[in-house]
Amino acid sequence: MTLLSALAGDAETEALLSDRAQLDAMLTVERALAEASADTGWISPEAAAAIAAATANFQPDWPELAAGMARDGVVVPALVRHLRRHVAEPHRAALHKGATSQDIADTALMLQVAKVLDLHEARLDALLARLAHLAGEWSGRQLMAHTRMQVALPTIWDAKLAAWSEPLQRHLRALSAMRRSLLVIQLGGPVGDRASFEGHGDAIAAGMASRLDLGLAAPWHTTRDPIVALGNMLALISGSLGKIGMDVALLAQNEIGALRLAGGGSSSAMAHKSNPVNAEVLVALARHNAGLAGILGQAMVHEYERSGAAWTLEWLTLPAMLVNTGAGLRLAVKLAGQLRLG
Amino acid sequence: MTLLSALAGDAETEALLSDRAQLDAMLTVERALAEASADTGWISPEAAAAIAAATANFQPDWPELAAGMARDGVVVPALVRHLRRHVAEPHRAALHKGATSQDIADTALMLQVAKVLDLHEARLDALLARLAHLAGEWSGRQLMAHTRMQVALPTIWDAKLAAWSEPLQRHLRALSAMRRSLLVIQLGGPVGDRASFEGHGDAIAAGMASRLDLGLAAPWHTTRDPIVALGNMLALISGSLGKIGMDVALLAQNEIGALRLAGGGSSSAMAHKSNPVNAEVLVALARHNAGLAGILGQAMVHEYERSGAAWTLEWLTLPAMLVNTGAGLRLAVKLAGQLRLG
Amino acid sequence: MTLLSALAGDAETEALLSDRAQLDAMLTVERALAEASADTGWISPEAAAAIAAATANFQPDWPELAAGMARDGVVVPALVRHLRRHVAEPHRAALHKGATSQDIADTALMLQVAKVLDLHEARLDALLARLAHLAGEWSGRQLMAHTRMQVALPTIWDAKLAAWSEPLQRHLRALSAMRRSLLVIQLGGPVGDRASFEGHGDAIAAGMASRLDLGLAAPWHTTRDPIVALGNMLALISGSLGKIGMDVALLAQNEIGALRLAGGGSSSAMAHKSNPVNAEVLVALARHNAGLAGILGQAMVHEYERSGAAWTLEWLTLPAMLVNTGAGLRLAVKLAGQLRLG
Amino acid sequence: MTLLSALAGDAETEALLSDRAQLDAMLTVERALAEASADTGWISPEAAAAIAAATANFQPDWPELAAGMARDGVVVPALVRHLRRHVAEPHRAALHKGATSQDIADTALMLQVAKVLDLHEARLDALLARLAHLAGEWSGRQLMAHTRMQVALPTIWDAKLAAWSEPLQRHLRALSAMRRSLLVIQLGGPVGDRASFEGHGDAIAAGMASRLDLGLAAPWHTTRDPIVALGNMLALISGSLGKIGMDVALLAQNEIGALRLAGGGSSSAMAHKSNPVNAEVLVALARHNAGLAGILGQAMVHEYERSGAAWTLEWLTLPAMLVNTGAGLRLAVKLAGQLRLG
Repeated sequence: MTLLSALAGDAETEALLSDRAQLDAMLTVERALAEASADTGWISPEAAAAIAAATANFQPDWPELAAGMARDGVVVPALVRHLRRHVAEPHRAALHKGATSQDIADTALMLQVAKVLDLHEARLDALLARLAHLAGEWSGRQLMAHTRMQVALPTIWDAKLAAWSEPLQRHLRALSAMRRSLLVIQLGGPVGDRASFEGHGDAIAAGMASRLDLGLAAPWHTTRDPIVALGNMLALISGSLGKIGMDVALLAQNEIGALRLAGGGSSSAMAHKSNPVNAEVLVALARHNAGLAGILGQAMVHEYERSGAAWTLEWLTLPAMLVNTGAGLRLAVKLAGQLRLG
Repeated sequence: MTLLSALAGDAETEALLSDRAQLDAMLTVERALAEASADTGWISPEAAAAIAAATANFQPDWPELAAGMARDGVVVPALVRHLRRHVAEPHRAALHKGATSQDIADTALMLQVAKVLDLHEARLDALLARLAHLAGEWSGRQLMAHTRMQVALPTIWDAKLAAWSEPLQRHLRALSAMRRSLLVIQLGGPVGDRASFEGHGDAIAAGMASRLDLGLAAPWHTTRDPIVALGNMLALISGSLGKIGMDVALLAQNEIGALRLAGGGSSSAMAHKSNPVNAEVLVALARHNAGLAGILGQAMVHEYERSGAAWTLEWLTLPAMLVNTGAGLRLAVKLAGQLRLG
Repeated sequence: MTLLSALAGDAETEALLSDRAQLDAMLTVERALAEASADTGWISPEAAAAIAAATANFQPDWPELAAGMARDGVVVPALVRHLRRHVAEPHRAALHKGATSQDIADTALMLQVAKVLDLHEARLDALLARLAHLAGEWSGRQLMAHTRMQVALPTIWDAKLAAWSEPLQRHLRALSAMRRSLLVIQLGGPVGDRASFEGHGDAIAAGMASRLDLGLAAPWHTTRDPIVALGNMLALISGSLGKIGMDVALLAQNEIGALRLAGGGSSSAMAHKSNPVNAEVLVALARHNAGLAGILGQAMVHEYERSGAAWTLEWLTLPAMLVNTGAGLRLAVKLAGQLRLG
Repeated sequence: MTLLSALAGDAETEALLSDRAQLDAMLTVERALAEASADTGWISPEAAAAIAAATANFQPDWPELAAGMARDGVVVPALVRHLRRHVAEPHRAALHKGATSQDIADTALMLQVAKVLDLHEARLDALLARLAHLAGEWSGRQLMAHTRMQVALPTIWDAKLAAWSEPLQRHLRALSAMRRSLLVIQLGGPVGDRASFEGHGDAIAAGMASRLDLGLAAPWHTTRDPIVALGNMLALISGSLGKIGMDVALLAQNEIGALRLAGGGSSSAMAHKSNPVNAEVLVALARHNAGLAGILGQAMVHEYERSGAAWTLEWLTLPAMLVNTGAGLRLAVKLAGQLRLG
């Protein structure tokens, strides 16, 4: 974990998106593909068992995988070559049979995202619980409202805490709804039409979905709106947290003093200060994630049956967005615990 | 309509977002507020009738409204002052009673957006119908698939047309679902807590929602995620159209010739050319709207009980996104009509 | 001018970028091309005179031009067809000879940008003069500095005003330096290599540059970095103004009261308020322009010898950025005039 | 180095931006501050020597630094506390005397950026040399030009290679010019006015600049335009490389075959393919960096005398932009070596 990550990252989300986690997910997918293929009779049960054993015992040669990634633009060809060496004949041809790299990579991503969403939803729950607790504690307490950065009229904390919580509740419901459409398998073969599975494609897809606890979907190699919609959702969460962060930083201004923060950040030069560091980072993460959503959206222009350019752009942005969101939730929970009436 | 708008804009969407359309929507909202207030007994039926008459006969003094907009940051104060001159005493105080500018402006926007979404959905339907027609006509016809900009394997047009249509069908369903959460009234009063309505707020809100055919919602002055989610949805639509545009431009390359376009654009210097102008504009609109979504997302950091900065940023971006989407749909329908097998 | 433009736009910049202004610039370029072509002997002086007369007397048929724009993706083919009808034979072939639409459109844009930069530089000068005046008036006056949204230590207004002015002085110098590399003619012919000018290209280019008071440059049809660099510069200006706006809004908070604003915006619901509207709009414009720079930058990926997609994307973004910058400067001058010590 | 970094990152740039490299730079700055302070007589030579020794022998306690980063929002307070333990009394107070965390962090960043720019300039030189070599080798060879994705007219490779090289030459010149304004020390003290240096500030600043081989500048704590201008410059470089990548991917299409690539990427499913992976990644990096520039630009709205939110946003974006640029240059050099006439 880097220093910046200690401030504005999230070790848990980062771990779920690490190379090791990705590799494990890919091995899981190759195994599920083999087993589902055996279920339909397209490969033999022995081949599936040999493949399962090879994935279970796989020891990655990271430099070889990195070299393959650099050469092929995706790590799967190198992984499959490597894995194939550990599958005895006559089962080698059964490994990755009919599949294309994107089938493995996209489905593995969904396995990883499922775990990240579990984590993020748990944090959203914790944050909402903390805000609900504050709402109970501070109910009826007055607060001066400000509009356009000027004193407006008195209101009560109930209204402020509701304005912080409601969007988060909406996001939690939306995340839950999104899981059904998002967390699906990818299976299309080289050009995304399942022709390479010689009639077994739909059955294999169904078997994989069942084994991987993912939804079933038509191939989506080039229709990336669910990925971008996920990014948009993440940016909404970060944005709602950024609004909380901005409000806290404003309300904790010394001259306003509606809030104070237990355990604010210190300064190397001014010992009297208690800086609203977590609140500020929430604002930075909101702005970062909003902008990243605008970049990820560029990947919608996914040319032909597979765009290396657009797909790589997803990789450059979506993981960072997941980490930003995890970091924002982590810090918001922390910040909510620091809030004291001024 | 400007020259650029003739190419990449949309006269119909622009009309629904014009100053005149906005003013009409605001007058409708002021009238609904008065009538709903009379229903609850908070103002008299005579006052509501006087206000309804004033809104019906309102002749805008545009320079005065523009001056108010520049001074106040929102046109409503000038509009209310102007409108009040046309309401006879003792009914003047009943106009805009309890409301704040944002109540009027946000609710009016929802009325406008409802009409824009009607238009866009109709175009999505038309586009899907045209793609379905092509799918019937071209069913089983071969097409060389390309991945990573290289020849891959043959596929059939059925797969390509499905990949173009499926996201659009998803967007149509999502738009329909979004209407329920998005198209709601805004009623909160000066600081968004309905306190200014002296206990009548919830009833007035319900009455307004019913009269305006909008949903009912808690005040959302500062919780702008539905607005940003709309923008995200628009960017997804534009993105899916951009993918179609990119595919068409690639497939219509002279050297590939899988498609040709009836009525392509001409060149001032090369008479032999038939340029895929509509396809290219779809790509430009996709990139523009994706980026605008990233800007609109910055408006999530909406400080305090009303942010002039964040709210103005919405105005600078959301209308452009609606126009881009309308333009994209207009051009996609046109382009789909131009497609011929090469 | 729309209501939104009254608040956050700029009538003067908008006028310099209107269809009429663009058309005039294009006619000026066609004339300069003809005259420079005559100078080199490539067309006859009589032809040049006939073309000059036709451009001088040109009455645009806007619907025809709009239809051409929509069909061809650029207005020049329709304009040239129209203009040609007003050039008597045997001179018709001399009109637009050797040129491509982009030669005319890009060079015309440079003529328009030159005028916009004149306007913006004058406003930057005015703003700097006003800030210098304040620096004189408020020299030595104390101001509480804030870091990380917390009270830090006292400083003096001299430091604050220097921090506002220095970036603007840098931008003024950079704009001046940029003019030399940016404000150049475009002349390349159909594929940007000047081959269509049959050996006269360089001389014609030099003649055009001299007649149009623009710099000379190699064809830049596909090398759009100067356009994007202009956009980046505009975003820097808007960003520096946004920082001033943010500071003003913060310092004018009632609880801080380091500044007050003469003539702030009024509220429809709270008569006591004086809203820092101009300051807030500066923040919104900064965020809008920063994001637009990120979109314009997508147009760098300008495929082949001319990309309709990337070029259209420039048109969708750069004019908005110029208007945003003009608006920001207009409002910053206004805001600087409103500032009073609290 | 992660798998993604093997494809689209850059180990050398990443190393120059690592925590270790940043820490070393910060230690160098603390030492230079102490020595320059001793030069002016503000601290004793013995204190400066003690501080120099402490920085030379510093063993970082990474968990302690990470905890400090998370608590204070910047690592410097924890670093100074730690370092101070290694400076014997009576010299402790001389360490970091007068300075604020931002003085150390910003100046250290400049030291790191200087090395990154050295690396990137060397790669730009190598790329230009390779393109110049191709220009010599392919001079006069015909190439079919394409405009708006359609066959236009024949041109020669000389024109194409010039269009690829000229922007890079401009960027090289601009980078060189930018170094003078960008690579400067930051010294301002707590609120950026050098008051904490009790009259020695300007002299200490000059001494630090000289010792660190950086330029001298007024404090720029809140005037972040040089940082954003650097980001914009990086995006221009990436954009110009993206244009090359896009052209290569198009020209290497099988149906066009104007170029072929020695050593293209392989596919897990289609053995016949030679994928233009490096070209595609250049496009992805161009789009990523363009968008990141739009995010970094949001950091211009830097409130008050130091914004934790805006500053953190710089950290979230600028290093990624430097890595993207380094990666693009690395890959472009590689790609240029792969190019063969078709």
